[in-house]
Amino acid sequence: MNFAERAKELVSKMTLEERMAQLCNKAPAIERLGVPSYDWWNEALHGVARAGTATVFPQAIAMASSFNDDLLEQVGDVISDEARAKYNVYKKFGGTEIYQGLTECAPNINIFRDPRWGRGQETFGEDPYLTGRMGAAYVRGMQGNGKSKYRKVDTTLKHFAVHSGPEGKRHGFNAVVSEKDLRETYLYAFKYCIDHADAASVMGAYNAVNGEPATGGKHLVEDILYGEWGFQGYMVSDAGSVKDIHEGHKFTKNEVESAAFALNAGCHLNIGTSYRELPQAYAMGLVSEETITKACEKLFETRFRLGMFDEDCEYNNISYDCVECDAHRALNRQMARESIVLLKNDGILPLKTPKTIAVIGPNADRVSLLLGNYNGIPSRYATILRGIQEATDARVLYSAGVFPSTTSQMSDIYREAVVTAERADVVILCVGLNPSMEGEEGIDAPNSANCGDRADIELPKRQQELIRRVVAVGKPTVLVNVSGSCVNLCEADRLCNAVVQLFYAGAEGGRALADVLLGKVSPSGRLPVTFYRSTDDLPPFEDYSMENRTYKFFKGDPLYAFGHGLTYSNIIETPLDENTVEVFNEGPYDTAYSVLKYEYIPHKSLCGFKKIFVRAGERITVRFD
Amino acid sequence: MNFAERAKELVSKMTLEERMAQLCNKAPAIERLGVPSYDWWNEALHGVARAGTATVFPQAIAMASSFNDDLLEQVGDVISDEARAKYNVYKKFGGTEIYQGLTECAPNINIFRDPRWGRGQETFGEDPYLTGRMGAAYVRGMQGNGKSKYRKVDTTLKHFAVHSGPEGKRHGFNAVVSEKDLRETYLYAFKYCIDHADAASVMGAYNAVNGEPATGGKHLVEDILYGEWGFQGYMVSDAGSVKDIHEGHKFTKNEVESAAFALNAGCHLNIGTSYRELPQAYAMGLVSEETITKACEKLFETRFRLGMFDEDCEYNNISYDCVECDAHRALNRQMARESIVLLKNDGILPLKTPKTIAVIGPNADRVSLLLGNYNGIPSRYATILRGIQEATDARVLYSAGVFPSTTSQMSDIYREAVVTAERADVVILCVGLNPSMEGEEGIDAPNSANCGDRADIELPKRQQELIRRVVAVGKPTVLVNVSGSCVNLCEADRLCNAVVQLFYAGAEGGRALADVLLGKVSPSGRLPVTFYRSTDDLPPFEDYSMENRTYKFFKGDPLYAFGHGLTYSNIIETPLDENTVEVFNEGPYDTAYSVLKYEYIPHKSLCGFKKIFVRAGERITVRFD
Repeated sequence: MNFAERAKELVSKMTLEERMAQLCNKAPAIERLGVPSYDWWNEALHGVARAGTATVFPQAIAMASSFNDDLLEQVGDVISDEARAKYNVYKKFGGTEIYQGLTECAPNINIFRDPRWGRGQETFGEDPYLTGRMGAAYVRGMQGNGKSKYRKVDTTLKHFAVHSGPEGKRHGFNAVVSEKDLRETYLYAFKYCIDHADAASVMGAYNAVNGEPATGGKHLVEDILYGEWGFQGYMVSDAGSVKDIHEGHKFTKNEVESAAFALNAGCHLNIGTSYRELPQAYAMGLVSEETITKACEKLFETRFRLGMFDEDCEYNNISYDCVECDAHRALNRQMARESIVLLKNDGILPLKTPKTIAVIGPNADRVSLLLGNYNGIPSRYATILRGIQEATDARVLYSAGVFPSTTSQMSDIYREAVVTAERADVVILCVGLNPSMEGEEGIDAPNSANCGDRADIELPKRQQELIRRVVAVGKPTVLVNVSGSCVNLCEADRLCNAVVQLFYAGAEGGRALADVLLGKVSPSGRLPVTFYRSTDDLPPFEDYSMENRTYKFFKGDPLYAFGHGLTYSNIIETPLDENTVEVFNEGPYDTAYSVLKYEYIPHKSLCGFKKIFVRAGERITVRFD
Repeated sequence: MNFAERAKELVSKMTLEERMAQLCNKAPAIERLGVPSYDWWNEALHGVARAGTATVFPQAIAMASSFNDDLLEQVGDVISDEARAKYNVYKKFGGTEIYQGLTECAPNINIFRDPRWGRGQETFGEDPYLTGRMGAAYVRGMQGNGKSKYRKVDTTLKHFAVHSGPEGKRHGFNAVVSEKDLRETYLYAFKYCIDHADAASVMGAYNAVNGEPATGGKHLVEDILYGEWGFQGYMVSDAGSVKDIHEGHKFTKNEVESAAFALNAGCHLNIGTSYRELPQAYAMGLVSEETITKACEKLFETRFRLGMFDEDCEYNNISYDCVECDAHRALNRQMARESIVLLKNDGILPLKTPKTIAVIGPNADRVSLLLGNYNGIPSRYATILRGIQEATDARVLYSAGVFPSTTSQMSDIYREAVVTAERADVVILCVGLNPSMEGEEGIDAPNSANCGDRADIELPKRQQELIRRVVAVGKPTVLVNVSGSCVNLCEADRLCNAVVQLFYAGAEGGRALADVLLGKVSPSGRLPVTFYRSTDDLPPFEDYSMENRTYKFFKGDPLYAFGHGLTYSNIIETPLDENTVEVFNEGPYDTAYSVLKYEYIPHKSLCGFKKIFVRAGERITVRFD
């Protein structure tokens, strides 16, 4: 029997009540049938998350900057190894609990259409094609890419669809969007990941789209997902998004109706508790026994496909020893290196053996900057400060630069930074945001006024002043901006000798940055989002039209364009024909390099990329198929 | 001219208004007289604090556990070097600001009479003699011990007097205390540090004592401090304690009267702004010109004695290079090692080359645990986890053990800890408190319900359960408790193979602990406070009678007594005569060792201690003078 047949047989032995109870994320055990309890809610955005120690890779937006989907597929393979390792050990306790299972609520392939969105860091950036390619690579790596009859883990494409803030209104927000933007921008990556990577699952978003709740709306779910696309996987709600259907959107009258609406539309699993109302909905004739049974069969088909009931599943043998092992940490460092984007360099980088390096700024020694959100806990990690200390014999001076509230009586809080800069040959100035300044509503963002979003794209005022004061000292200065999104770096670009963008960089982030700053490797990341010059460049945050947004449609002049990213070498691209480019490294450094291909339809639009490694003096011919 | 004469001459050139303005901590510049602005408020409890990067030594309570006052004097010497180095560089900006000067609001020599007091961690423990000896050593080290005609920095004995909670009531609390307890317990260390170390300054406390505000009360200040003791230094208020005289204690009618009361009593300097009312108080005839002038002369005498107006002061030459230099870090590690107290050991320690070590618990990788409160910022540091990782080739596994709120839906939050323990040869289980659970009202303690104090001496319930669950795995388990105060460790003592007390241990704390656990050095710390078995052992928190408190008067049976602390060796003390002891190390380990001497008056009372280093097999004769 295949997985579907085995599921059908198993479900046929369940009572209707039992079937309904299986449709919430905390699925109970059915002991007489040998079914252990299972929690469908698990997180693995950039490493197994919220389940203790794990390899913490760079945040998704950082991995997107690598423009290296092959590497990302390897990362997905490693993350799913760790998820399996944890599942294998936790299942011995009986059932597994939340964050201990195999059905991962990742990747987030929403479009980062506006830099103010706090969760933009979770995405692969602003471009649908890049998002599709990176998302598909992640899904393939995670799911095992068909190498076994069993799926390694399930991935869930989220949030379906047109979901990108405001966080504070998400439970009742109606995103108004044209059919063109819907297809071309907001849905492109979902279809891509289904078509090219066979993603197991899709998650319905909190918001409504053009008046219909995303978790079950006719146009999105019935017409497009199941209709046009013929999606064969399963659909889950976001945590509590079924409840939003009546509470937030007033689309139904109560939770019974919401549960019926979502299930009837094809949302098989409710992350949350609204489907506890299904018995009532069934009693009222709002859902049929057949619909319930088919949803339950779908969910058990996936549990069979994950090998949960089979001794011979080869993934059962993945040992806990792999969690945060040396090989995984090495891959993590590689991804962190490729994620670093060099935005400006007057020649100061790589550093030429300075005797004394001043590392200055509030972002120099913050562990949270390595982690982003939806993260695991690393047991070995290096902040920027630590990474530089480990990598050099130079004397490393440090000043946090701006201090917390105990200095409130100080009229000049920048003195230590100035003194520290004065004493050094070169300054590494670490500014930017942190995950408490941008994040998700109610979870990661004490930035409560905006529920995780930002009101503007400026650096905090004290950091702006810190830059001015430190640069005024007159030492060569490399500015490192750490953030999960675009920040206005115009002044930094004008004042500093080099500017480096580090997205939340994972456990090895500080070491990877030191590798780059000290010239052990050349940077090779590219921006997956536009770096605007001003908040005034942006349309209203709640306006979901793509007009004047992202590199495709922005009419102004960005500070750093989408795709921008320098290496230490000098790369010359020569088109040989429409699909072939010769890449010549005429500079003195070996470097990784992403070749990008654009089309004009009529707006400029990424349609291909390929990352290669070119040695100094080497020529490589790259073909796009 | 001596310093007093120079001060008198300088002050004679000031107007009365200028003199009055010099009596607040933010003393303004008087340019025509060449007097730069100066802020008298500076912090250096266990390293230069709140002034950026500095060597962060173990918290005061930890250094007390070393029972090594010679070492503490060296620490004081190093801290004052760093304070001088910072002052020397910051004075070039014109005046120095808060936390950049030479007049340090340390040490805290209050008696840690009740473990619930959040600031107990700042003290040298519960014993007046130990507090006096350690306080005096710190003062000597900091002030330069008379090696120069200039004082290196000023120390301030705080908080004078009878000050130890509750934090939430401190601005209006009246401590009721017998004359015997006052003299024998609460004032002993103040007199000791004045007599034996010539402390520059005394700080008046917030509270009242037997109905008189401590900042100016007749019995404490006039009769005892200036009268009986003949104190020749200067007195400062606590931050805002002059305002408490009318607002909290209702002892005067308004701020004008409070300012007059405190100044007339001999409080020369107001940390705060109440002395801005002195012109009004003078106009009303509440203070005399002579009193104002004498206070101002006293303050300038100390500024002259600190060499602030002299080019030839040798301390001007202390270079910023010394801040957190290798020598200071080495001394820090030495102090951290000697601060560790081994409470129980069934022979498991030192560890015998395990292949896999599990480091488990919420206190294993928390930087805040190194810092305590009133701390600087270290640029190089090691948590417990990092210290063990650096020190061993064994595989080190890690689980934080209990997780934050994202696991709230988990019914069993201990699984990772259990799994991690199962995979190891030995478990290091790191529990305890942290500086957000015990601290100062309004500053360091989000523990807002109790304003920094604790309601009881128990470990958090989830940590108690963590201990049970991890121990149940059956692996050899070393419990490390990190806290700034006594915690009920009865169950840990019963369940674990070894119990180690680490007070907030400073930047090198993790490395020092690894040195001890892995046998590089033998532990040699002793408890400076009683470890009680239960909160029920304690009298009411607000009762300042010493009856049934501390090892001297406690009638019950403590879990670990004051002075308790094991080494890895076996030390045999043989009294030779009343003042001489032979110390024989009959065990296999070299170790530092503190010999304690008690008298019975009639209660048991520490009257001498001396720390020595005894090699295995060695006999040393120790004489108490």
